[in-house]
Amino acid sequence: MSAPRTNIAVAPDSLPAMHAGFTAAVRRAGGAVVPLAEASALMWADPGAADQFGAILADAPQVEWIQLPYAGVETFGQDLDEDHLWTCAKGVYATPVAEHVLTLALAGLRQLGLFTRTPSWGPRIGRNLLGANVTILGGGGIAAEVIRLLEPFGCDVTVVRKSSESMAGANRTISASRLMEVLPRTDVLVVAWALTAETAGAVNAEVMAALPAHGWIINVGRGGHIATDDLVAALESGSIGGAGLDVTDPEPLPDGHRLWDFPNVIITPHVGNTAEMGLPLIVARVEENVRRWVNGEQPIGIVDPSAGY
Amino acid sequence: MSAPRTNIAVAPDSLPAMHAGFTAAVRRAGGAVVPLAEASALMWADPGAADQFGAILADAPQVEWIQLPYAGVETFGQDLDEDHLWTCAKGVYATPVAEHVLTLALAGLRQLGLFTRTPSWGPRIGRNLLGANVTILGGGGIAAEVIRLLEPFGCDVTVVRKSSESMAGANRTISASRLMEVLPRTDVLVVAWALTAETAGAVNAEVMAALPAHGWIINVGRGGHIATDDLVAALESGSIGGAGLDVTDPEPLPDGHRLWDFPNVIITPHVGNTAEMGLPLIVARVEENVRRWVNGEQPIGIVDPSAGY
Repeated sequence: MSAPRTNIAVAPDSLPAMHAGFTAAVRRAGGAVVPLAEASALMWADPGAADQFGAILADAPQVEWIQLPYAGVETFGQDLDEDHLWTCAKGVYATPVAEHVLTLALAGLRQLGLFTRTPSWGPRIGRNLLGANVTILGGGGIAAEVIRLLEPFGCDVTVVRKSSESMAGANRTISASRLMEVLPRTDVLVVAWALTAETAGAVNAEVMAALPAHGWIINVGRGGHIATDDLVAALESGSIGGAGLDVTDPEPLPDGHRLWDFPNVIITPHVGNTAEMGLPLIVARVEENVRRWVNGEQPIGIVDPSAGY
Repeated sequence: MSAPRTNIAVAPDSLPAMHAGFTAAVRRAGGAVVPLAEASALMWADPGAADQFGAILADAPQVEWIQLPYAGVETFGQDLDEDHLWTCAKGVYATPVAEHVLTLALAGLRQLGLFTRTPSWGPRIGRNLLGANVTILGGGGIAAEVIRLLEPFGCDVTVVRKSSESMAGANRTISASRLMEVLPRTDVLVVAWALTAETAGAVNAEVMAALPAHGWIINVGRGGHIATDDLVAALESGSIGGAGLDVTDPEPLPDGHRLWDFPNVIITPHVGNTAEMGLPLIVARVEENVRRWVNGEQPIGIVDPSAGY
């Protein structure tokens, strides 16, 4: 039992703007929007409704391909299987997230957390991102876009990634086993990994101790990469310069958490890419992928269910 | 009565690091460091000591050229005369100041003022600088460096300047008489003028009313460009998105001033370029200019005393 490739479902309809955007994208790409029971593919149109997903998919065994609106897919982990082709929004949101990396790094080095919290003319302190040593954990789309935005700043960029393949625009690409070598001269450590068993908690006390006292940690990956208790301890001892966190563990960070108290911690509520920033970007990806699907080509952003990204 | 061009004075000695840096720079450039009474030129080595300047210079009539460590020279206004060659640090500090423009623009558009002042997980709001319409008031070194740093962001950049000469990298260059035309589609208005009679108070209620409700004003020029009362009124009425101010009027901004209260105002204490960031840059300029002076060439950054910049 199979459905024509042009038959595409868009569900759920809980987010009207996303549903409308995906529906229009499917049609522009030459697809027909049909009920799930008649569809060869499902465009999942609500990043916040992962819990409904398994039940919906169980009723539609003819669906071959699922496009997810997420960049990371770990909230979806139990549903990922080898029976379907899964694509996620890998790389789609990389540019606004990379912009947020620069925002947090600049705001951190230039002490905006202190200045905004003190209603009084402050001390003349701050450091430049210009010419700084930046180490990026992860060699994916966010790293590529951070490197591109940093280009005029003349930074020395080290990418730490699994593969030994060198990253365009980076001054060097190294494997995780050599991370400790570069940390002592790292001014800004950017966490841009996908979350896996290997990276969970990997930014720990040992990593923080190796950073210079002015070094900032910027996390736009997932909160779980950072051992939060270790981070609080490093901030209390002053062993790092500060942290810019767009993701936290736990997330949302509860009121009263110790991390809210540090003037050298800047916490943003997972806004590297917001719905408003990202909608036109994911709509364009859906259009591109449906066009490929209808033409019998591979869609972009294929997930490896065993790797989890 | 004149002194050899190689005879260069460095004064005052109130800032040891700057005095030592200038002294070494003079020697590297082929000059001899001599007392002021024997000098053909004076390297002024303290940006905070303008009040001592007139009396010191009156005792040394043979001095022909004065190098100032400032980018703007208005605190020096009464001493500037046609009898000397004056050079200032025009363009020297442009790169760190341009970095600060990006810092304030990104922090503003991405609501860091709100997020840092609220110890609780915030709303998922924010706008991109990516692709934004940026209008820069001023066509000098800061504007050139802002344009360079913005290049990967794909912004649409309008430069507003006196001369009609087009600015490299800008999408368009217009005269101040056409400012009102571009304001309604300006997402970020960057004030990077030198302060003159024409620009004092020029960012006023009329300008603010023409900006869109999400438009941010970033001031790294001088506080006096902005009519502060008009800015407070615009913020109170919500007619602009916010303001990032590295300079204020009055400056320092006194405790209790209304501007401290707005979550969409980010005030930094004139740190676009700090002493730490700027010292290596001004030392390099002093070396270059002394080399030129000793060789009978024009130094860089000549001030027009009648124009005041």
